[in-house]
Amino acid sequence: MSLAIISPGRNPKAWIDVIKKHKPNLRIQVHPDIDEPDAVEVVMVWQHPPGILSQFKNLKMVSSMGAGVDHILSDTSIPEDMPIVRIVDEKLTWSMTNYVVMGILNFHRQFHRFQEDKRNKVWDMSDPEIPVKIGVMGVGALGGDVVDKLRYMDFEVFGYGFSEKTDLDYPYFPKDQLDQFLSQINVVVCLLPLTSDTENLMNRDFFNQCQPGTFIINAARGKHLVDEDLIEALDTGHISGALLDVYREEPLPKEHPFWDHEKIQFTPHIASVTNPEAAAPQVVENINRMEAGESLLNKVNRKKGY
Amino acid sequence: MSLAIISPGRNPKAWIDVIKKHKPNLRIQVHPDIDEPDAVEVVMVWQHPPGILSQFKNLKMVSSMGAGVDHILSDTSIPEDMPIVRIVDEKLTWSMTNYVVMGILNFHRQFHRFQEDKRNKVWDMSDPEIPVKIGVMGVGALGGDVVDKLRYMDFEVFGYGFSEKTDLDYPYFPKDQLDQFLSQINVVVCLLPLTSDTENLMNRDFFNQCQPGTFIINAARGKHLVDEDLIEALDTGHISGALLDVYREEPLPKEHPFWDHEKIQFTPHIASVTNPEAAAPQVVENINRMEAGESLLNKVNRKKGY
Repeated sequence: MSLAIISPGRNPKAWIDVIKKHKPNLRIQVHPDIDEPDAVEVVMVWQHPPGILSQFKNLKMVSSMGAGVDHILSDTSIPEDMPIVRIVDEKLTWSMTNYVVMGILNFHRQFHRFQEDKRNKVWDMSDPEIPVKIGVMGVGALGGDVVDKLRYMDFEVFGYGFSEKTDLDYPYFPKDQLDQFLSQINVVVCLLPLTSDTENLMNRDFFNQCQPGTFIINAARGKHLVDEDLIEALDTGHISGALLDVYREEPLPKEHPFWDHEKIQFTPHIASVTNPEAAAPQVVENINRMEAGESLLNKVNRKKGY
Repeated sequence: MSLAIISPGRNPKAWIDVIKKHKPNLRIQVHPDIDEPDAVEVVMVWQHPPGILSQFKNLKMVSSMGAGVDHILSDTSIPEDMPIVRIVDEKLTWSMTNYVVMGILNFHRQFHRFQEDKRNKVWDMSDPEIPVKIGVMGVGALGGDVVDKLRYMDFEVFGYGFSEKTDLDYPYFPKDQLDQFLSQINVVVCLLPLTSDTENLMNRDFFNQCQPGTFIINAARGKHLVDEDLIEALDTGHISGALLDVYREEPLPKEHPFWDHEKIQFTPHIASVTNPEAAAPQVVENINRMEAGESLLNKVNRKKGY
C-alpha cells in the first residue's frame, strides 16, 4: 500500500510532512519518481497529466488536493467507478469568504474611485455608497459560508445554483431561473464548480441579462468566463467592473488584455489557497476509512460534477 | 417653540423633509435665516460657528446631527447644564463597520500589492495573506459592532478604550494598558470619541509601541492623529500603511503630504454618513420627550465627552 502524489510544478513537501505526522508508516511516492506503481492504491493529485493514472493497476481512490475536482473529472481515462474525494477545508472557506467580502465592499464603498480621487487631489463626498444586492452562484460549502457572513453583515443576498434547494431561508434560484436571479442583483459572485453545465456560463447572453452597472467577481474557475464577452460588456459600460482571481490559462499570459484593462481588478489565483495543515489529515482519514471499508468523506458525485 | 438648524455648508433639506413628516406643526428655522431666535428651544447643529447659540435665550436642548459631539463640546460658550444629545443610527453603524472591514480585508489580502502586480504584469502567488490581529480603539455603538462582525468572521479582535469594561467576552484593555494592547495586534482601528484624553493619541510614542508592520485605520477624527508622526513612522517602514477617512482640516488641503504618500489610502470623510431618514426621527423623539418632561435619548455625558 502506497500513496502517490502528482502535483506538477508544486512542491508537496508541506503535505508530506503533515501526512507523515499522522500516518508515519504510509509509503509516499512523488511523481515523477514513482518506482513501484503497482503498490499505489491512493493518489493525491492537482492538475495531473491526463491518462497518467492508468499506470496504477491497484488504484482504489483519487483524492483532489483542493476543493475543485474538475481537473480530475476532465481526465476521461479514469474509470467511471473510481472513488474520487475532495478537500473541504474550513481555512479554505474562511479565505474565500474574506476575499469575496473584500471584493464586494470595495465595489460598494468605491475604494477604487477614492484612490483615483487621491491621485488627482479631489475631495468629493458625493454618493459614497453604491447600494448592492448580491447574487452568489454556487451555495455549497464555499458559497454557503459567503452567504452566511454577508447576511450577518445585513446585506441582501440571493442564491443561484444547478441543484434544487428547498431548505434555504433566503431567495434561491435554480438552474433555469438565471434571468430572474440576475434581474434581482447588481453583484455577481461566481463560486460554482466547473462542469459541462457551468463552463462558459458567464458569456455575452449572461451579461446582457445582468442589470446595468453590475459588478462581477469570479473566484471559481477561468473557464466559467468567456474573456472577450466580459471585455465587451465592460467596454460598453453595461458591466461596471470585475474582480478576477482565476483565468483560462494560468499564469495569465503577458499578452492577455485583462492586464491592461482598467475596469478589471486582478489577483493571481490566491482567493483561497488549500492549507496542507488542514487538508492533509483529510486525505489520511480517507485512507484509514478505505482500509477499514468505511464510507469516504467528501466523496464526489460524478454525475453532478462536484 | 421652534427648532433651529445650523449646519454651515450642508443642505438640511432631507432633514427638514423627514422632520415635517413626523411632526408637521413644528416650526423650523434654518441658519442664517433665523427671524425669531427667542422662539428657538431646540437646535440641531453640525459644526456651528462657536458662540452662535448664545442668541437663543430659551434654548433647552442641543442635538448633534451625527454621532460625534466634539464640535459641540469644544464651544465653551454653551452652558454646562445644557442637555446635549447625539444620533445613534444603525445605518451609520452599518456603514462604519463595512468601511472598517473593507480596510482590514484590503490589508490582510494585500489588495494594493496585487493591483501593483497587475500594472507590472507580475504573477506572484507567494504569501497571499498577512495574518492579522485586530485592535479596535473605542468599543461603543460603532466599535462594538465592528468587533461583533469581525468576530463572526473568525478574526481575532482586541478592544481598547478609556472606560473600564467588565462585561465583554473578548480581551479588552483600559486606558493605562495601551502598550499591552498595541503589543497584541498589527491592525489598529481608531473609532474613539474626540476628547482631551484621546486628542493626539496616535503620535510618535504610540507608533513606537506598535508592532513592526502595523496598519492604521482612522475613521474617527483627524485630531486623534499627529500627521507628521504618522508620516515619519510610514517612512521608516515601522508602520506599513494607513487608511484615513478623517483629517485635522477638511477638505484635506491641496498641499498636505498625505495626498502624495503612497502608503496612505484615502477617503474623504465618507466612512459613515448620517442618514436623515434614520437620524431625524431621533431628533423628533427627543423634542417630544423634552416637551413631555421625559428623559432624553442618547444624552451626552459631558465629563466623558461622548
